[in-house]
Amino acid sequence: MTDATPPASDASPLRRRARGGGRAGNARRAKSAVIEQMPWRLPENPDRPTEPLGEEGVAAIHDAAMRILEEIGIEFLNTESLALFAEAGCKVEGTNVRMGRDWVMEMVGRAPAQFTITPRNPERQITIGGRTILFGNVSSPPNYWDVELGKTPGTRDQCRDLLKLTQYFNCIHFAGGYPVEPVDIHPSVRHLDVLHDKLMLSDKVVHAYALGPERVDDVAEMVRIAGGLSEEEFRATPRMYTNINSTSPLKHDIPMIDGCLRLIRRGQAVIVTPFTLAGAMAPVTMAGAVAQSIAEALSAIALFQWVQPGCPCVLGTFTSNVDMKSGAPAFGTPEYMRATQMTGQMARFYGLPLRASGSCAANVPDGQAMWETSNALWSAVQSGTNIVYHAAGWLEGGLIASPAKFVMDCEILQQIQRYFEPALTATGPEDLAVDAIADVGPNGHFFGADHTQSRYTTAFYQPFLSDWRNYEAWSLTGGAWVSERAHLLWKEIVNSFEAPPMDAGIADELADFVARRKAEGGAPTDF
Amino acid sequence: MTDATPPASDASPLRRRARGGGRAGNARRAKSAVIEQMPWRLPENPDRPTEPLGEEGVAAIHDAAMRILEEIGIEFLNTESLALFAEAGCKVEGTNVRMGRDWVMEMVGRAPAQFTITPRNPERQITIGGRTILFGNVSSPPNYWDVELGKTPGTRDQCRDLLKLTQYFNCIHFAGGYPVEPVDIHPSVRHLDVLHDKLMLSDKVVHAYALGPERVDDVAEMVRIAGGLSEEEFRATPRMYTNINSTSPLKHDIPMIDGCLRLIRRGQAVIVTPFTLAGAMAPVTMAGAVAQSIAEALSAIALFQWVQPGCPCVLGTFTSNVDMKSGAPAFGTPEYMRATQMTGQMARFYGLPLRASGSCAANVPDGQAMWETSNALWSAVQSGTNIVYHAAGWLEGGLIASPAKFVMDCEILQQIQRYFEPALTATGPEDLAVDAIADVGPNGHFFGADHTQSRYTTAFYQPFLSDWRNYEAWSLTGGAWVSERAHLLWKEIVNSFEAPPMDAGIADELADFVARRKAEGGAPTDF
Repeated sequence: MTDATPPASDASPLRRRARGGGRAGNARRAKSAVIEQMPWRLPENPDRPTEPLGEEGVAAIHDAAMRILEEIGIEFLNTESLALFAEAGCKVEGTNVRMGRDWVMEMVGRAPAQFTITPRNPERQITIGGRTILFGNVSSPPNYWDVELGKTPGTRDQCRDLLKLTQYFNCIHFAGGYPVEPVDIHPSVRHLDVLHDKLMLSDKVVHAYALGPERVDDVAEMVRIAGGLSEEEFRATPRMYTNINSTSPLKHDIPMIDGCLRLIRRGQAVIVTPFTLAGAMAPVTMAGAVAQSIAEALSAIALFQWVQPGCPCVLGTFTSNVDMKSGAPAFGTPEYMRATQMTGQMARFYGLPLRASGSCAANVPDGQAMWETSNALWSAVQSGTNIVYHAAGWLEGGLIASPAKFVMDCEILQQIQRYFEPALTATGPEDLAVDAIADVGPNGHFFGADHTQSRYTTAFYQPFLSDWRNYEAWSLTGGAWVSERAHLLWKEIVNSFEAPPMDAGIADELADFVARRKAEGGAPTDF
Repeated sequence: MTDATPPASDASPLRRRARGGGRAGNARRAKSAVIEQMPWRLPENPDRPTEPLGEEGVAAIHDAAMRILEEIGIEFLNTESLALFAEAGCKVEGTNVRMGRDWVMEMVGRAPAQFTITPRNPERQITIGGRTILFGNVSSPPNYWDVELGKTPGTRDQCRDLLKLTQYFNCIHFAGGYPVEPVDIHPSVRHLDVLHDKLMLSDKVVHAYALGPERVDDVAEMVRIAGGLSEEEFRATPRMYTNINSTSPLKHDIPMIDGCLRLIRRGQAVIVTPFTLAGAMAPVTMAGAVAQSIAEALSAIALFQWVQPGCPCVLGTFTSNVDMKSGAPAFGTPEYMRATQMTGQMARFYGLPLRASGSCAANVPDGQAMWETSNALWSAVQSGTNIVYHAAGWLEGGLIASPAKFVMDCEILQQIQRYFEPALTATGPEDLAVDAIADVGPNGHFFGADHTQSRYTTAFYQPFLSDWRNYEAWSLTGGAWVSERAHLLWKEIVNSFEAPPMDAGIADELADFVARRKAEGGAPTDF
C-alpha cells in the first residue's frame, strides 16, 4: 500500500474536500473521515414481504421439496454424513440419502429462528433473523476490475484494498469470503494470509471456506486467537460462520459437509446456499428450481440439527436463470427476483433465517450493473432476507470484484437503510405539519420556516456519491460519471485507511500462528 | 429525419444483426424489427402494495389534508372556479377557498375508480385504474442530451425522435407531454406542430397541456380529427387527457383549472399532480408533504366532480425532497419512495387511480441515473400506481430528455412487465418439475432435458439491451458500456422508424387544421 494520493484532477468533485498532501495529510484524513457516512447499525426491515405465493403455493413447493427428499434423495459424498443419516434412520443407498418429511421437519424445527455472531470487536456483533437485514462484501471472484487496470486475476493487494472497503463502510456488516481470490498466494497458505489480513484490517464477523479440515480449523483458531478467547469462550456462542453450496443438482460434496460439521460441533454458524441456475443445474421453471434448492438446503440443515440440535443454520438462496442464448448465468432478472421472494416465503414457513445476494451480470459498473444490482437488492428487501451476500462490489456474474462498484453499491445500501427508518413515514402532529402549512401559506416557501430549519440537517438522506447538482455545476467540476467518482473515492478511502485497534499480544500470537502453520506447509492442495 | 445509418462501429454489438444498407435496407428493417421486444400489453400488477402506513396513519394524513382544506384553504386564481365553489357552498374569500370534508368526500366519491382512454387506434386503448400499471415517455424537459451533442435546448427534430421511440416501444403505453420542449418552434404554434407530429408519428393516447383555452381546444380538435370522430363520438368516452400541477403551496393557477374544466366538460380525463418538494414547496416532513399534496389534488378533483359528476380524474403524486445543501430537487430517493407508497395508500382510501413517475437527479445515463430510476419505478410498482409518467428518458430532475436513457429505461420497464407474469411464480405439477428432477438425477444437467427443451425459448426474460455475455466475449465486440449501446440503438430505431398508418383524408384534414390555425396566429403567448 502506498501513500500516493488518488489521481483526482483539479476538476474532480472529490477536490471539494480541502486537504493537505503527503503522509501528514493522510494521517489527518484518517482521523477525520473521507466521507460522512451513516453510523453502524443493524437495519430492521419494517415492510411486509412481497409474497407472490398463496398458502397453497407454499404448500406445493414444500410438498415438491419433500418428495425430492423422500423419493429421489440427495447424494452425500461425505462418508461421515452417510453414517449419521443411517443412524438417524434415513434410507442410505451408496451415496444416496432419502429422508422422510416428518424427520426433516422435526430436525429443521430445532434450528433457531434468530441468533448472533460475535466477532473480535463485540460492538460489531450481528443478529441474524427476525426483521434484521445485513449486508456483506462481494465474495470469491477470481478476477478484479478497475478502470485503470481492466480485468486481471486477483492479487493479495487488491484483496486487502477490498477488505479495507469492507471495514470502512458502516453499511457492510460482515466480511464474507475473500472479496477477490488472491491467486498470487499459493493455495496451501492462502487461507492463512487472507485471514490474517482480514483479522488485522477488520473487526467485523468473518467467514471460513469449507475447503478441507485444515483450512476450517486454521481459520477457527485464528478467529479464536483474534478474539482473545479460550476454546470454551469460542464455543459458547457463534464467533464466525461458513457458507456452503451444494453441487446442484442434488449433491453435497465432501469438504463442504465436513466443514459444516466441524464448525457446528464448535458452536459456529453455517449457511447452506444451493446454487440452482434454472435451466442448467435446476429445472427451467422457477418453482421447480426453488423446490430443488429447498430440498438440497434442508437435507444438509436436517443433518446438522441431528448432529448438533439447535445449531445456528441459515437457508440460502442463489436461484437465478441462465441466458438461454449463451448458457451464461444472469442475475438481478425478473425471474431471480421472484425466486428470491418465493424462497423468502419458504424460509418463513420453515422458521429459518434467509440469505440472498446482491448480484448482476454486467461486466463493468455501468447502468446495467446498477439496475440489475438494484433488482437483486430490492428483492432481498422484499423477500425478508436477513443476510445479503455479495451486497457490494460484484460484477460479471461473480467473476469480477470491483472497488468502484463496491462504493456505488454502498451508496444503494445506505439508501436502503435510510428507506427503513420510521421517521420517513411517521404521522404525528409535527410530521403532518398542518401548523407549518398554515404559517407558510399560499405565497411562501418552506426553506425558511421554523419547521424546516429545526429539521433540515437530518430530514433527508444525504448521499456521499450521488451528484445532485445541476448539469452546469456538475460539468464545471469535471462532469465525472458516477463510476469515475467512485473510482477516485475508493482510492481515497484505501489510502487514508486506518486499521481497527488490536492488542499487540494478540497480534503477535496471530502472526506466530500463521508463521507456524506456514512452516508446517499449510493445507493440502489436492482438493 | 435522414436515412443515415447509425454510427455503429464494426465492434458494435449492434452489428450482430445482419442488415443491408441504404434506403432499401431501411425499408426492410422497418418491416422486421430492430429489436425483439415484448408485445403490447396493459400490464397487471399482481403484488400486494407496500404499505408503510397503518390504518391510523392513513386516517392521520386524511385528517391533515381535510384540515388544510377546511381551515387553511386553497387559492384558486381561476375566476370561474371561484363561482363554482361558491355555488357548491364552499367558503370563498377572495381567491381562498375552504371546503368541508363531507362535501369533498362526497365529490371525490363520484370519481370512477377505473376508466379507459381510447386513442385514434382503438387497439391502443388504455385502462387506468385497478391493477393496471401503464408507462409513458418523459415529458416537458427543456433540454436534450446525447453523448455526441452534450446538453442543448430541445428542438423539433429531437422531439420527433423521442416521439418515434415513444411509438416504437410497446412498453410505452401513452404519449405524455412533449418528450422534449422544442424551443425552435414559436410558442404560439408549438402545440400545433408538436401535436401534429405526435398524431402522425404515434397512434397512442396523447395529452394536451392546459396552457390556455386555445391550446386545449386546438389539441382536442386535433385528437377528434385524428380519430375520425364526430364531436358526439369524441365526447362519448375519454379520447385524451391533461395533467395539471398545482402551484404549491396551496394554489391552483388560471390556465390549469381552465384546461381541466374544458376537457371534463367534453368527457375527457384529467390528472392532478401537485409538485410538492418537501423542504421547499411543502413541509420538510414527508407525511406533511403528502398531506399537502393530497389536499391540493383533492380540492381540484372535488371541483371537477361538482361540475361534471363521474368525470375521470387521477390523483397524481410528485412528492420528493430537495438536496438541503443546494436546494436542488432530488428524485428516486428513499424519501421519494416512501412518499409514493404513502400516496398509494391514500389513493386507495379515496378510490382514485394513482399517477407517479420515473425520475432521477443524475445528469447523464450512468449508474446513479439507473439506481435512482430503479428506485422510482419500483416505488411506482410498490405503491400500486396506475399510470407512470416520465417512465423513459428523464435526466437531471426533468431538465433533460435523453434518447439513450429512454432506451435504457425501456429495458427496465420490460423487466417490470415480465416480473408481473404469473408464470414466474406458478406452482402447478409441471412447474414444480419433480419428475424432471428425478429424470436428470444427481449427475446430469437440465440443458438437454425435455422439460427444459420444451420451454426454454420462453422460460426467461430475454433483454434487448443488457449484455449477459462474459467479459471476454463482450470485450471482443467492443466492450461498449450500456449507455453507448443504447445510443447506437436509439439511432437505429429512429432511422428505421415507420409511422403507424393514417387515413389520407384524415391526414389532410389534420394538416389543413394546423395550417388554418397557424394562419390565424395560433395561441396567445402572454401566459
